[in-house]
Amino acid sequence: MNERDTLCVNQNGQLEIGGITLKKLSEDFGTPLYCMDQTYIENMCAIYDKTLKTEYGDGLICYASKAFSCKEIYRIVNCCGIGADVVSGGELYTALSVGFPAEKICFHGNNKLENELELAVKNNVKYIVLDSYTEADDLDRICQKYNKIQDVLIRVNPGVEAHTHHFVQTATVDSKFGFSISSGEAEQMVLSAKNKKNLNLVGLHCHIGSQIFENKSFSLGAEKMTDFYKLLKDKHSIEFDVLNLGGGFGIYYSNDDSKKTCEEYADYIKNIAQTLNTAIQKKGLKKPFLILEPGRSIVGEAGVTLYTAGRIKTIKDVKNYIAVDGGMFDNPRFALYQAKYTVVVPEKMNVKPSVKYSIAGKCCESGDLIAEDCYLPEIVEGDLIAVLSTGAYNYSMSSNYNRNLVPPVVMIKDGKAKIVVKKQSYDDIIRNDV
Amino acid sequence: MNERDTLCVNQNGQLEIGGITLKKLSEDFGTPLYCMDQTYIENMCAIYDKTLKTEYGDGLICYASKAFSCKEIYRIVNCCGIGADVVSGGELYTALSVGFPAEKICFHGNNKLENELELAVKNNVKYIVLDSYTEADDLDRICQKYNKIQDVLIRVNPGVEAHTHHFVQTATVDSKFGFSISSGEAEQMVLSAKNKKNLNLVGLHCHIGSQIFENKSFSLGAEKMTDFYKLLKDKHSIEFDVLNLGGGFGIYYSNDDSKKTCEEYADYIKNIAQTLNTAIQKKGLKKPFLILEPGRSIVGEAGVTLYTAGRIKTIKDVKNYIAVDGGMFDNPRFALYQAKYTVVVPEKMNVKPSVKYSIAGKCCESGDLIAEDCYLPEIVEGDLIAVLSTGAYNYSMSSNYNRNLVPPVVMIKDGKAKIVVKKQSYDDIIRNDV
Repeated sequence: MNERDTLCVNQNGQLEIGGITLKKLSEDFGTPLYCMDQTYIENMCAIYDKTLKTEYGDGLICYASKAFSCKEIYRIVNCCGIGADVVSGGELYTALSVGFPAEKICFHGNNKLENELELAVKNNVKYIVLDSYTEADDLDRICQKYNKIQDVLIRVNPGVEAHTHHFVQTATVDSKFGFSISSGEAEQMVLSAKNKKNLNLVGLHCHIGSQIFENKSFSLGAEKMTDFYKLLKDKHSIEFDVLNLGGGFGIYYSNDDSKKTCEEYADYIKNIAQTLNTAIQKKGLKKPFLILEPGRSIVGEAGVTLYTAGRIKTIKDVKNYIAVDGGMFDNPRFALYQAKYTVVVPEKMNVKPSVKYSIAGKCCESGDLIAEDCYLPEIVEGDLIAVLSTGAYNYSMSSNYNRNLVPPVVMIKDGKAKIVVKKQSYDDIIRNDV
Repeated sequence: MNERDTLCVNQNGQLEIGGITLKKLSEDFGTPLYCMDQTYIENMCAIYDKTLKTEYGDGLICYASKAFSCKEIYRIVNCCGIGADVVSGGELYTALSVGFPAEKICFHGNNKLENELELAVKNNVKYIVLDSYTEADDLDRICQKYNKIQDVLIRVNPGVEAHTHHFVQTATVDSKFGFSISSGEAEQMVLSAKNKKNLNLVGLHCHIGSQIFENKSFSLGAEKMTDFYKLLKDKHSIEFDVLNLGGGFGIYYSNDDSKKTCEEYADYIKNIAQTLNTAIQKKGLKKPFLILEPGRSIVGEAGVTLYTAGRIKTIKDVKNYIAVDGGMFDNPRFALYQAKYTVVVPEKMNVKPSVKYSIAGKCCESGDLIAEDCYLPEIVEGDLIAVLSTGAYNYSMSSNYNRNLVPPVVMIKDGKAKIVVKKQSYDDIIRNDV
C-alpha cells in the first residue's frame, strides 16, 4: 500500500480498496465493475494543488476530465478546490449539471462546434482555448451576440516531441492540434486574435503528449513557451497573464512503467514550477498564472476493474485464455494501443503466481483482449480477476460494442461504496432505437 | 452506381443515396449522420438467400448482427426472410424486442454469461453455439430447469489461416474461440456434448476470420469441416444435420480492396456451396443444413457517414487536416486497425480531386483520425464530407468518448429517409450518472 491510496492486501490475503474487499464489492454490485478509490483521487488533487501553490504560486490545477467524466468526479474535484478541463459540450454539460464553477473551467478541442462554443459562452466558462483562425472569428461573433468579453488562450505547438506512444504524441509539427511556434504560425495567430473585439487573449496553451515520464520533456516545453513569451514581448510588446502547460504525466500501468510515490508525482509539478520560475526571471517576463491539466494521473491508478473469470481455455503449448465478463467494450486500450495492465486475483493475493494466462474479453472479436501473458495463481471459473490502473480512459472510452452493457462505477471511501454511474440495462441500449 | 445499391452521382454532380442527396439529408437530420441504404441491405440479403437456395439447397443465411445492431435492422432482415446471428444478450434482446423469430437465431460467444444463456433458452433461440466444456454443463443445467431440449452447435477451429488483418483472424490455433480439430480437442468436445441430457448436438460451426477476399480460404474451411464430419462418422458413427461455416466475406473499403459486383458477392456463397456439394458426395456424408453468417457484407457498403468539414489546418510541407464534427467516437476503426476508407465530397463529386487531406475527428487525441492522405477537391469549412462503407462496425462500435454524442442513424429507401436510431442528447449521457 502506498501512502496515497487505499489499495492493499489485508491479513487474509484479500485485495481491499477503501477498506472494502473486492470480494465484497463483487457481492454487492456484481461484475464487471469499475471500482474507484476516492481517497486516491482526493490525495492526488491535494498533492498537485499544494505543490503548485507552494512551488510556484498563483495558478490552477484543472482536472482533465476526458480521462474519466461523470457527475460525481466533478463534485469530487470541485470539493478539492481544483478546476476542470473539458473537451466537449458533453463534458461541459456534465460539469455544469452538478454546479461546477464555470470560472474554473478551461475548454479545449480542435473542432469545437458552434453549439459547444455557445454553451460555453452562455455559461461563462473562464477560458476557451482557440485552435484555429476561424474558431476565433466564430467565437468573437458568438460573444458579440451575448455581449460578452471572453478570456481565451491559443493552443500552440512548442515542437517538443515527448517519448511516448505514437498515437498519443501531440506537440510535434504534424498534429491536428495547435499552431507551430517554429513556423511562425503561432505568432501570426496571436496577432490576429489580439484584434478580436470580444476576445481577451490572456495567454497560450500547450500539451506535449500523454503518459510521459521524463521531467525533461516538461522542462523543455516550459522553456520553449517562455522563449515564445519573450519573443512576443520583445517584438510586439505583448505580455500574457496566463500560461497553460497542459498535462501528460505518466502513471504506473505495468512493470514497464516506473511506480511512483506521492513525492514523485509532486515532482512533475515541482519540476515545471522550478523551470518556469527560473525561466521567467532569466527572460524578464511577468510571472503568469500557471494552469496545469493532469487527468490520467489523478484518476488512473484510482481505478480497478473487477471481472469474474468465465471460460478458461488451455491451448496446449500455446496459451491459456481466461475469458472475463467484460472486454474491449469496457476497456478498449489493449485493442487500441496494445496497452499493458497489471492483473491480479483479489482472493488469492498471497498465492504464488504459477500459470501464464491471457485475459480475453467476451466480444466476438479475436482482438478483444485485456492483457497478455500475465502470471497468476491457478484460476478456476468464478474467481475474481482485477485489472489495476483502469481509472482513466476506460469508462470514458467504453462502448456498447456487441450490445454489451457498460458496467457500473462505484466510488469507494472509508469503507463505504456508492454507485456513481448506474449499470446500463438492455432498455438503455434500445432507448434511442425507433 | 452499382446494380445492387442506390449510391450515385446525380446530374448536378451531387452524391445521392436512395434517391436523396446527401445535402438534403444533412439539412433534414444534421451532421454527423449515419446514412444507411435500405435497398442495398435488402438486395444483399436477397442475393445471399437466393444463391444459397439455388446453389446448395436447404440452409439459412443468418445476418451477423454485431456488424450493425438496432431494432430496425432486425425488422429489415426478417422481412427478407433470413435469420440472425447474435453474440450477446443485448443483441438477442434487441432482436426479440421487434419480434424477430427465435427459430431463426443462432447465438454465439466465447463467454456467454449465465443470464444470457437463460435469456436464449427461455425465448427458444434455435441454435446455441457452445464454446467450452463448462458452457455445455451450464447450458444443460439451465435447459433442465426450463425443461427444454436445446439444439446446439460446437465452435471448432479448422486451422485455416485466412489472409487478413492480424486482429481479425479467428481460426488459427491460437484463438480464444473454439476447439481445435487438429489437436483432438474438438473430437473430445463432440463426444462430451453428445452425452448431455438436455442438449441436442446438431452440428458444428467455424468462422475462419473477417474481411477475407479469397474464395480458397472458404473452400479450405469447408473441406476441413467435412473431413472432420467424415472422421466423426467413420470413427464414432456420428452424423450431423447442420453445418455452420460462419462469415467473413470481404467488402470494399478503399482502393486496397477489390470492388465487387452483386455476382461476385454471390460467388462467395456459390463457391462454398459447390465445394460443400462435392465434398459431401465424395466423403459420403449426409447433406447438412447449411448456415452462413455474413454481416459486414450485408450492411458495410450500405452505410455512408456524413460529416461537416470544420476547422482546416494546413501544416506547410507536412499535411492538410480537415477536422470533422465526428471522430473515433463514431468510427474507431482507423484508431483500432488503421482501417482505410474512401472519402468523398458529396456536393463536389464532379470536381477534380486536387489536394491531399487527412480527415481528423474532434476528440482530444492525436490518434483520432478517420482517414489519411485522401485526394479531394479543395475543401472549405461547411463542406459536407462523406466516408463510404461505414455501415458495419461503426455505429456498433460507437462510444461517448470525450462525452461526444453518438450520431443518429437514418435508413433511406425510394426517396424517403427515416430515423431508425435517434440522436443522443446530453441528458442521455448523464442518464445513469448519480
